[in-house]
Amino acid sequence: MNKIRIGLFGFGKTGKVIANEFLNDSLFTLAWVVRKGRDDHQKYASRLLGYEFDAGKIFSIEDMDDDFFSERLVDIIVDFSDSTGVYLYQRAAKTGITIISAISKYEQKELDLLKSFAEFTPVLYSPNMTLGINVLMVAAQILQKIVPHADIEIVEEHFKGKTEVSGTAKKIAKALNLNEEEHLNSIRVGGIVGRHEIIFGMPNQTIRLSHESISRAAFGQGSIFAVKFLIGKPPGMYTMETIIAEMFRKNIPVY
Amino acid sequence: MNKIRIGLFGFGKTGKVIANEFLNDSLFTLAWVVRKGRDDHQKYASRLLGYEFDAGKIFSIEDMDDDFFSERLVDIIVDFSDSTGVYLYQRAAKTGITIISAISKYEQKELDLLKSFAEFTPVLYSPNMTLGINVLMVAAQILQKIVPHADIEIVEEHFKGKTEVSGTAKKIAKALNLNEEEHLNSIRVGGIVGRHEIIFGMPNQTIRLSHESISRAAFGQGSIFAVKFLIGKPPGMYTMETIIAEMFRKNIPVY
Amino acid sequence: MNKIRIGLFGFGKTGKVIANEFLNDSLFTLAWVVRKGRDDHQKYASRLLGYEFDAGKIFSIEDMDDDFFSERLVDIIVDFSDSTGVYLYQRAAKTGITIISAISKYEQKELDLLKSFAEFTPVLYSPNMTLGINVLMVAAQILQKIVPHADIEIVEEHFKGKTEVSGTAKKIAKALNLNEEEHLNSIRVGGIVGRHEIIFGMPNQTIRLSHESISRAAFGQGSIFAVKFLIGKPPGMYTMETIIAEMFRKNIPVY
Amino acid sequence: MNKIRIGLFGFGKTGKVIANEFLNDSLFTLAWVVRKGRDDHQKYASRLLGYEFDAGKIFSIEDMDDDFFSERLVDIIVDFSDSTGVYLYQRAAKTGITIISAISKYEQKELDLLKSFAEFTPVLYSPNMTLGINVLMVAAQILQKIVPHADIEIVEEHFKGKTEVSGTAKKIAKALNLNEEEHLNSIRVGGIVGRHEIIFGMPNQTIRLSHESISRAAFGQGSIFAVKFLIGKPPGMYTMETIIAEMFRKNIPVY
Repeated sequence: MNKIRIGLFGFGKTGKVIANEFLNDSLFTLAWVVRKGRDDHQKYASRLLGYEFDAGKIFSIEDMDDDFFSERLVDIIVDFSDSTGVYLYQRAAKTGITIISAISKYEQKELDLLKSFAEFTPVLYSPNMTLGINVLMVAAQILQKIVPHADIEIVEEHFKGKTEVSGTAKKIAKALNLNEEEHLNSIRVGGIVGRHEIIFGMPNQTIRLSHESISRAAFGQGSIFAVKFLIGKPPGMYTMETIIAEMFRKNIPVY
Repeated sequence: MNKIRIGLFGFGKTGKVIANEFLNDSLFTLAWVVRKGRDDHQKYASRLLGYEFDAGKIFSIEDMDDDFFSERLVDIIVDFSDSTGVYLYQRAAKTGITIISAISKYEQKELDLLKSFAEFTPVLYSPNMTLGINVLMVAAQILQKIVPHADIEIVEEHFKGKTEVSGTAKKIAKALNLNEEEHLNSIRVGGIVGRHEIIFGMPNQTIRLSHESISRAAFGQGSIFAVKFLIGKPPGMYTMETIIAEMFRKNIPVY
Repeated sequence: MNKIRIGLFGFGKTGKVIANEFLNDSLFTLAWVVRKGRDDHQKYASRLLGYEFDAGKIFSIEDMDDDFFSERLVDIIVDFSDSTGVYLYQRAAKTGITIISAISKYEQKELDLLKSFAEFTPVLYSPNMTLGINVLMVAAQILQKIVPHADIEIVEEHFKGKTEVSGTAKKIAKALNLNEEEHLNSIRVGGIVGRHEIIFGMPNQTIRLSHESISRAAFGQGSIFAVKFLIGKPPGMYTMETIIAEMFRKNIPVY
Repeated sequence: MNKIRIGLFGFGKTGKVIANEFLNDSLFTLAWVVRKGRDDHQKYASRLLGYEFDAGKIFSIEDMDDDFFSERLVDIIVDFSDSTGVYLYQRAAKTGITIISAISKYEQKELDLLKSFAEFTPVLYSPNMTLGINVLMVAAQILQKIVPHADIEIVEEHFKGKTEVSGTAKKIAKALNLNEEEHLNSIRVGGIVGRHEIIFGMPNQTIRLSHESISRAAFGQGSIFAVKFLIGKPPGMYTMETIIAEMFRKNIPVY
């Protein structure tokens, strides 16, 4: 089988970790990387990350002329850049290249543009690509339906420098229809990369669903999971939750 | 609506807690209790448990003549006695009274007898009726399918006096096809009623599903949940896992 | 050795559990119980709690005439009643009977009165007698000195019905000089008796000290621990923290 | 004040992290690094680790002639190499240079040699320099004395690749006089750098002391802590436990 060709937007702290995950997995070829500015221009991401082969040539946004995509064909574009990335690959999306966007926050305009691509190609958008987090979210939504009278609290723990409340925790609160002010608890101390816990309290028992990350590489593994899922899928809008929810459905145990 | 009439077999430590849960819930009438021996014979379970009304008259096994069930009609028989209870209510089962058995261990013969009732009436059998434990089991089986490469470990923590390995933990191990010797860890210390945790480890993240009980009343609440589920169901063999699995299926979120 | 004679004030939900702990321990004789009102008047606490012997005769406050203490000599008075209890045993305290008070909240006037007894006899006052909680408090204060730059957060989890913030958690926050608004997190869900956790976060590691109760009996065991400690001690004011701190000092390991 | 000059033995995965911690702290100058082999020979550790200044020139063992230490004076030698490192700096130790060794396992002969340096200079030896782990160990030993009847269990969780039982957990078990076979539980799954938990179970309550690392940098921070402690100390043998135990003693709260 031919390898799946990946084009990556974004080469910041997270982008580098993502590139590394794709370089590490023999199912993929990292075809190129597009980043802002001219740092490491025309170098290979693979070399910068310590590999002994050439892959993931780094381009600047200014390099993106009309022929960029046709001369550098990929199967999938993965976007870990920022909300403006969506403008750069609209042409590619319309030719049917699968899009995966992990941008944490879009304005409505950019989000609408991203969604418009779904007419032509599979588009997956998830601000948090981590597999475990999305499993937590789907499982929690099911649990809430099974034990509707349970009290539910969310605890999120992150390193001291993270000043705002975890976007993922807010998303979980919203999915469970919980008031953030009352039911979302944020712990900020050194020594924690990221941890989310959802506590279901019933009169004589508690269920806890918890997820802990120790590296951004978890985002990369989530992306790889998404890529594999999207292979052969029809055009349309996907999210990690829809993928996980579908996997839940398919894997309900039969006794 | 008429109240659901419950007949209870067993009035030991757990049986009392179960009786109390049914007495506490206005959906039910505790019609009678059958126990071994003649302790508290002909007294009312309700009075013994501190209620100011008469319910749950206590009968001995010897009281069970041919007319016992026809003179004391119930909708559901709940069995928290022992493996021989099944012989006492076979006649009732064959007339279509729903059976819920929470006996922790049957010999094959008694289990076969119990199963034979499923031709005539809904029969639910689960050695651990706790809702949360069964949720954990179903969720863990789904997760294992979603992340097949995850390492899985089970930790069960119980009070010092529990000498054997938790039967529930063994059941979880079996459902996940894990070698007990290698992947099941038992902690025995004072001050813990019962706690089960299933850890899924992936390269950069962990998911933990945990359940903690603080009282046997959790069994009663599970029984009530099961009773409500069985209302109007066709004859057949049910388990808490099948109920929970069906509830998972019905409640997969749609985005 | 003669048994230690205990007089108990208070026979509410907690008082009963305390009585039970003293009845259970062969080191002690529960001489009497004083309670408000006339419920179970002149009955034996032992009988009410299921023992087959007579101990802990129950008196009402109105029974306490001038000769009450001289006719019913005890070594130690344990007070689990309310803030007014202190007036009832001042005479006894001044004759040298050791006082243990576990009242959760005193007004200044009553607290001053209690403290005045310390001139004549050992007086121990702790709103939370639980051994583990006091160990946590002392250990946390030491840790804070060892790792002064650590971020510290307190999490307390209790059953849904507990509306106010845990007094113990507030006390820990005060001892650690932490702003309650910012660093004290309260989780309220069913199925949890009581849990306190203190998290110390450093750049690459975290230390967690946690304590979980499953029963009020933990208060009784703390009281027994305190009684044993106070035997032979000089008059003065004691708290569980001072006892635990002294035990820390005596038990520093030598390598 | 003059900076403290550090000489580092070892520049493997952990050694690099240690070098980085000393480079990061303005209290120190990383004078040089000695490593096996000729990789990065004569380069600066600082440059290899991304700093824009020269520090920590890298020498090979073969460079260590008779004048090595006199020409490259340091205040403290920190050894993260292997058990043979001790032979290389015996001359330096005898001239009074403080030694910190974090070698995980010595044969008796090398350990005796290390100890012999304590006649001339402060020598600190700890196979696990992490501050939190040593705090856990000391606190656990004190707790065991305070609650001698508590059941104690140790749980250690590490990444799948760690095949043997955690040496630190074994050391804790030994300090608490616990049978490893019975009371030490090892969990091995992906996604965990390192976690140790000590559970104290009493009839109605549990205390848990837990420590979690997310990076080897915790070793470096422990080394820095040790260096600061050793300043001005007399010759003698020290361990992290003795340091922490002394800090416990000094910081017992006074009420």
